[in-house]
Amino acid sequence: MAKAPVLTPQADDFPRWYQDLITKAELADNGPVRGTMVIRPYGYGLWERMQQEMDARIKQAGASNAYFPLFIPQSYLTREAEHVEGFAPELAVVTHGGGKELEEPVVVRPTSETIINEYFSKWVQSYRDLPLLINQWANVVRWELRPRVFLRTSEFLWQEGHTAHASYEDARDYAARIHTDVYGDFMTNVLGIDVVLGRKTAKERFAGAINTLTLEAMMGDGKALQMGTSHELGQNFAKAFNTQYLSKDGQQELVWQTSWGVSTRMVGGLIMSHGDDNGLRVPPRLAPVQAVVLAIKGDDAVIAKVREIGDRLRAAGVRVTVDDRTDTPFGRRAVDWELKGVPVRIEVGPRDLENGTAMLARRIPGGKEPVAVDTLPEVVPAVLEEDQALLLAQSRERRESRTADVTTLAEAAEAAATGWARIPWSELGPEGEAKLAEQGVTVRCLIAEDGTVPTADDAPGTLALVARAY
Amino acid sequence: MAKAPVLTPQADDFPRWYQDLITKAELADNGPVRGTMVIRPYGYGLWERMQQEMDARIKQAGASNAYFPLFIPQSYLTREAEHVEGFAPELAVVTHGGGKELEEPVVVRPTSETIINEYFSKWVQSYRDLPLLINQWANVVRWELRPRVFLRTSEFLWQEGHTAHASYEDARDYAARIHTDVYGDFMTNVLGIDVVLGRKTAKERFAGAINTLTLEAMMGDGKALQMGTSHELGQNFAKAFNTQYLSKDGQQELVWQTSWGVSTRMVGGLIMSHGDDNGLRVPPRLAPVQAVVLAIKGDDAVIAKVREIGDRLRAAGVRVTVDDRTDTPFGRRAVDWELKGVPVRIEVGPRDLENGTAMLARRIPGGKEPVAVDTLPEVVPAVLEEDQALLLAQSRERRESRTADVTTLAEAAEAAATGWARIPWSELGPEGEAKLAEQGVTVRCLIAEDGTVPTADDAPGTLALVARAY
Repeated sequence: MAKAPVLTPQADDFPRWYQDLITKAELADNGPVRGTMVIRPYGYGLWERMQQEMDARIKQAGASNAYFPLFIPQSYLTREAEHVEGFAPELAVVTHGGGKELEEPVVVRPTSETIINEYFSKWVQSYRDLPLLINQWANVVRWELRPRVFLRTSEFLWQEGHTAHASYEDARDYAARIHTDVYGDFMTNVLGIDVVLGRKTAKERFAGAINTLTLEAMMGDGKALQMGTSHELGQNFAKAFNTQYLSKDGQQELVWQTSWGVSTRMVGGLIMSHGDDNGLRVPPRLAPVQAVVLAIKGDDAVIAKVREIGDRLRAAGVRVTVDDRTDTPFGRRAVDWELKGVPVRIEVGPRDLENGTAMLARRIPGGKEPVAVDTLPEVVPAVLEEDQALLLAQSRERRESRTADVTTLAEAAEAAATGWARIPWSELGPEGEAKLAEQGVTVRCLIAEDGTVPTADDAPGTLALVARAY
Repeated sequence: MAKAPVLTPQADDFPRWYQDLITKAELADNGPVRGTMVIRPYGYGLWERMQQEMDARIKQAGASNAYFPLFIPQSYLTREAEHVEGFAPELAVVTHGGGKELEEPVVVRPTSETIINEYFSKWVQSYRDLPLLINQWANVVRWELRPRVFLRTSEFLWQEGHTAHASYEDARDYAARIHTDVYGDFMTNVLGIDVVLGRKTAKERFAGAINTLTLEAMMGDGKALQMGTSHELGQNFAKAFNTQYLSKDGQQELVWQTSWGVSTRMVGGLIMSHGDDNGLRVPPRLAPVQAVVLAIKGDDAVIAKVREIGDRLRAAGVRVTVDDRTDTPFGRRAVDWELKGVPVRIEVGPRDLENGTAMLARRIPGGKEPVAVDTLPEVVPAVLEEDQALLLAQSRERRESRTADVTTLAEAAEAAATGWARIPWSELGPEGEAKLAEQGVTVRCLIAEDGTVPTADDAPGTLALVARAY
């Protein structure tokens, strides 16, 4: 008799599989206020590792962390016309504080361009103060009518970078640097997701930006997820907040700015990129737990051995957990670690002790085989690196095999039913984009023929990547 | 002619000195909404280091990080009677979301006992799920009528731990473990502040707790600052949220709980503990920048030398910054690093190159002397350890010399004008406590004669520590 599946199979109902996995792997729960979420310890552990890896890259790019208030005076939002138009429908508004009605209602930040510019305009005096490179890790609120855990939540966690530069070129180059060296490098080499780096069309730009760079990933069902964005803000906010500096020539000049962010949405992207019918598969470089050493039975020699193996792997630089909770049946624990997607399981029972071996189960390619215990400190790190590469290769393979090159709008819409379409932007244009949107298909980004990021929408040979998206 | 002081001297006006320092050392600004603050990069760097050190200790104590929503249904707050009474006057309330009035207003979390218990009651089923040890790093909002940057702000950053246990004893021991092994160890050995660990009186307990443990520090002006608290919640929230588990005996039992937190208020405590008329003094183990290597003049050989020294100190494990911004006058940069309290400055000019020396300036004891460049990788780490110990010794010296042993209420009130008083709790009692409160003097905590934490308010020989407080 076949076992009942732990999760709804992906092929039966992908959204339900996603929700099942999040619940059963104990990643998150829905919050009590509609659209909010509770991130449980294992899910938060994934986010913490993302933060560590990202934070190191952000600092490497020269930015410093700071913290700006959660509450923004409503009047700030209205100073940049496109910005307020973009965010007004999503705002949460505080009207009462300390038992009294407030004189001016305050908005819970949906993003911090406005309040940060208020301070940049005080801090920046001269060209010596530039570039000013700031990042913050924070929660933001955007009221969400169709929430989905991690992907679209009324409150989410993110980092938002905000910078001011002396010239257009410097700002442009910094937005591009974050796009490739921080986000692109992290998503490709840590998350193991084969993201496409491109440029948003005018329609899809951030509210207040002159250019938005994006990273798009293909999920297991062929749909696209925007994993992060880096914006050139031009001088739009500088004008609204009068953020000026004294140039070397003694002139007052407006600064040029960027902003850029990634959020807990990446956890959703991770799940839908790498998950399978048995649960999550976490890329080893990200994994908070890279290997779990399981005692099959609770006898003393087995317990001693799993602890010893744990110590030896830890000494070899592996992030390891020892599971000696033998009052819970082994089978249930094994399924749980599989659901949680821990890359390597090392299972030790009484018979293994006699042989000096342990069973090594690999979550990413699947399968298990006995391995001499003494070789584990060499074998496990090698296996982890192999499986990291395997996830990226699988992600790439999926994206390539499910992306069709097409030349007409009808073909693009058809391809987007099961995957992505690449179509010359000159064939589509803003009108074609609007027509596709009526069918729920969007231009995810513009890319150059050689796969690089085009410097303008109308650069010759520009391709549009078209898909349904989360 | 004497230089004009950079800061208002402490002796002239301590509160103004504090505000001056925060502004001039670029630690924080006031936010636009009353009582909020902008934490600038250097101030946030101090908080980040506090987070790192604390987070490691919290994980060592077995707790895992998670994240609960910012927004709490108003109805949750009212379930625990004392809790709502304590927090109602400080709440910020969201009444509108996504352009509509909400059916039920939501509260911006002032603390998360209620919402966390709602989930604990789902997650905890059996004794196997206990203890459940959770921590979160988050922002919270408590509307503040008399705000002061870092010390009392309407929004602040903190960690809040929340745990559930099978027995009273286990919860009690865990609250005590956090009090001593996490908070006490961190504040003493990293912050270099000679905190007193004690127990709050019933009047000063957290709203909803059966016992509150506290850490109290003496500031430079002799007043007290509560640096952190760890609460035994008993079964108060468990009753309100029906948080039960199936015991080994097959009985449904209510859990026993703790909660504990420290916040960005510690940055204020750091400033007022260690700051002097020249600025901040940052303990080396905390310092984001332990040593700065300054080029006095902009010639190529000097620039090359400061970078080389920076690399060598970095290799020796020192957190170092190289300051080669020689387009800003050296004197101004030196004053700025002094204001920021970087423990060690290494100054290199053309003459030093000839001698193979550099000037080593120590912020904590003060003074400077020439040191052979080749010895810096040994000298600097040794100096840093010495100065760490020195700060703690100074903090202890101040507390001891400014704490008076008294036996009457009148003496206690008098001593509290300039420092702290120790008085037998049996002499004071809740009535004396109320009388002192009329004069703005509070019982900071109860301690045993041997300096340990009393297990009950009425334990024989219990002393009350009495002071004015921030």
